Amino acid sequence: MESKVESLWEEVRELTLGATVDRLQSPPTPLQFLRDFVSQNKPCIISNAISHWPALSLWPTPSYLSTSLSSSLVSLHLTPDGQADALVPHPARSSLCFVSAHVQPTLFPQALDIIRRPPNHLVAYLQQQNDCFRTEYSELESDCDAHIPWASEALGCLPEAVNLWIGNHLSQTSFHKDHYENLYAVVSGEKHFLLLPPTDVHRMYLKEYPAARYSYSQENGEFRLEVEEPERYVPWSSVDPCPARGSLKQESLKFPLYFNGPKPFEVTVKAGEVLYLPSMWFHHVRQSPGDGGCTIAVNYFSFAGYDMQFDIKYAYFNFLQSLPCRSIDDQTIPEGECEDDSGSHAPSNHLNSRFSGDESATNNLEIHKDRDNV
Amino acid sequence: MESKVESLWEEVRELTLGATVDRLQSPPTPLQFLRDFVSQNKPCIISNAISHWPALSLWPTPSYLSTSLSSSLVSLHLTPDGQADALVPHPARSSLCFVSAHVQPTLFPQALDIIRRPPNHLVAYLQQQNDCFRTEYSELESDCDAHIPWASEALGCLPEAVNLWIGNHLSQTSFHKDHYENLYAVVSGEKHFLLLPPTDVHRMYLKEYPAARYSYSQENGEFRLEVEEPERYVPWSSVDPCPARGSLKQESLKFPLYFNGPKPFEVTVKAGEVLYLPSMWFHHVRQSPGDGGCTIAVNYFSFAGYDMQFDIKYAYFNFLQSLPCRSIDDQTIPEGECEDDSGSHAPSNHLNSRFSGDESATNNLEIHKDRDNV
Repeated sequence: MESKVESLWEEVRELTLGATVDRLQSPPTPLQFLRDFVSQNKPCIISNAISHWPALSLWPTPSYLSTSLSSSLVSLHLTPDGQADALVPHPARSSLCFVSAHVQPTLFPQALDIIRRPPNHLVAYLQQQNDCFRTEYSELESDCDAHIPWASEALGCLPEAVNLWIGNHLSQTSFHKDHYENLYAVVSGEKHFLLLPPTDVHRMYLKEYPAARYSYSQENGEFRLEVEEPERYVPWSSVDPCPARGSLKQESLKFPLYFNGPKPFEVTVKAGEVLYLPSMWFHHVRQSPGDGGCTIAVNYFSFAGYDMQFDIKYAYFNFLQSLPCRSIDDQTIPEGECEDDSGSHAPSNHLNSRFSGDESATNNLEIHKDRDNV
Repeated sequence: MESKVESLWEEVRELTLGATVDRLQSPPTPLQFLRDFVSQNKPCIISNAISHWPALSLWPTPSYLSTSLSSSLVSLHLTPDGQADALVPHPARSSLCFVSAHVQPTLFPQALDIIRRPPNHLVAYLQQQNDCFRTEYSELESDCDAHIPWASEALGCLPEAVNLWIGNHLSQTSFHKDHYENLYAVVSGEKHFLLLPPTDVHRMYLKEYPAARYSYSQENGEFRLEVEEPERYVPWSSVDPCPARGSLKQESLKFPLYFNGPKPFEVTVKAGEVLYLPSMWFHHVRQSPGDGGCTIAVNYFSFAGYDMQFDIKYAYFNFLQSLPCRSIDDQTIPEGECEDDSGSHAPSNHLNSRFSGDESATNNLEIHKDRDNV
């Protein structure tokens, strides 16, 4: 089984993906985009697709944003270290849990200040994947397009959600996938993506982790880690592609399929560029700030086709994910990180979950459809 | 493994295919066709797409065809029983071989006569999948379109091959798949398709059979079965979906995944209708004659996108096909049909062949690209 899965990783690269992500110098026609990228489940970077957005010149100036949004309450995500939606030691067990940020409603000018001039004890990130651009930042809506027209025409629908992301170099997004077709437009600074196709699902070592959340106290400036009650489990990738210095060898032993397999596609998306990130692709994101001291991006989540979000590719993916891969299932988890499965939940190596890796990425997205009812 | 593969068969039907093949009352736009069918690898039947073809009124009249093609030499396929590209007992072993028709260059009027008034000892079929419409039947080219415009625009290319099929109710085409996107336009009579999606590959019991060919003697009116020298093996489906009366039970025991699994999609395409048959779908074809005494169809083979014929779906398919399925591999072949693998060839249960089932379907197609060089 392992060798066949490894052949699949190679074949999808040989047959369709190639060695690097395609770059288009101008927006494709809807047909080209659908045929050469969406239908192929193949990412690309598009230049000169948002050159007409006033946002490109306006948003890098912090005073413009702070004036436009002077009285807006926005969702500020706070963590001690920039790692939200990430794995951290469980507070009560010798295992890991999946932690989300503390979400603090904050006046925008104050939030932007914290991002641009980060204090020592916390990292702030303006990001809320619940269509926040249209709900929390409507004052900015005339600065960019409500959708990407050639993509909407190709996909046959308008975006389900439009999100704004304003952060600094301290924030990272750990490896995960979304079920949406994603168009990611960078307005200021740069975003650095690591990408792996859905065929590489076993290399992500998806496991279920108990959900937790940071609770931040403004009084003493401290974070407390609170495990959700009743327990809820989130399937998430166990792999940190950028392990701390000195721990690469140990991480490679724990996650050999990731560290010894084909390298992920590395992509830097600059201000003015758009990344098409196909559904079900695993992505890890870092960022570099632009002139205004932060990284700003807008992303559009869509389903391809009205009610057609589940296709043969998705069925194949679920099938692949359901297959046991011995080097994962036999994985010896080093002491101190062993999942405690004494609770009521299924064993930790639960690779069969139909929507593994999806739920936590979208757990704030209220418009999210009930997929099990399709 | 078996239960996971069975779940895949069910899931692809639940998520995307549904219970019946979609019918469109008018041609889709290129975008709709690409998004809702090609990208989904999902068949459909389209009405009113070829209503403007003069062929629809002209070709059902035999005298029109015979006059237009009075001096045309065409490739007439002759078999004793209407089964070409089919499995028959090997002449020298207690096993099966894969037999192709005797191809007899024949003046068209004479060929049409034989099809319309079949003699007792042979079945004739005008069909040659090497772009025969444009090479052998060019006198008819103004009677229909050179391509299906909305499909060509969607796929981003003109057809690689256009084929004409003129036959009677005695000819059948056994289960196989093609790597092409296929648009199949019926001009006279009806075509009856059984369709299975690529996910069901294990249900086809693909095995490699030695290639053979009928040789027909006009002198004594007899067929001789000639095995190719040097030996050549063709991967082909072992399943006959319409077994002879009384043998269903035995066939079900030999091919339980086919006979006990989900039913194939049954589709009748009538004169004036077009079937979109996605690449890699297994299909079995029977036919009923129209008023002129024969069934006439034109089909267009295309690749989706310039040089983009191999996508993630294809990689998934190859992976799936490479997986062993115990109920196939342990299959007890009844005595008298057991593959003789004493020759130099690989064992018969060779499911890993990269293009299993493709080669013989296209072995006459000279324009066929060298796929291993992609």
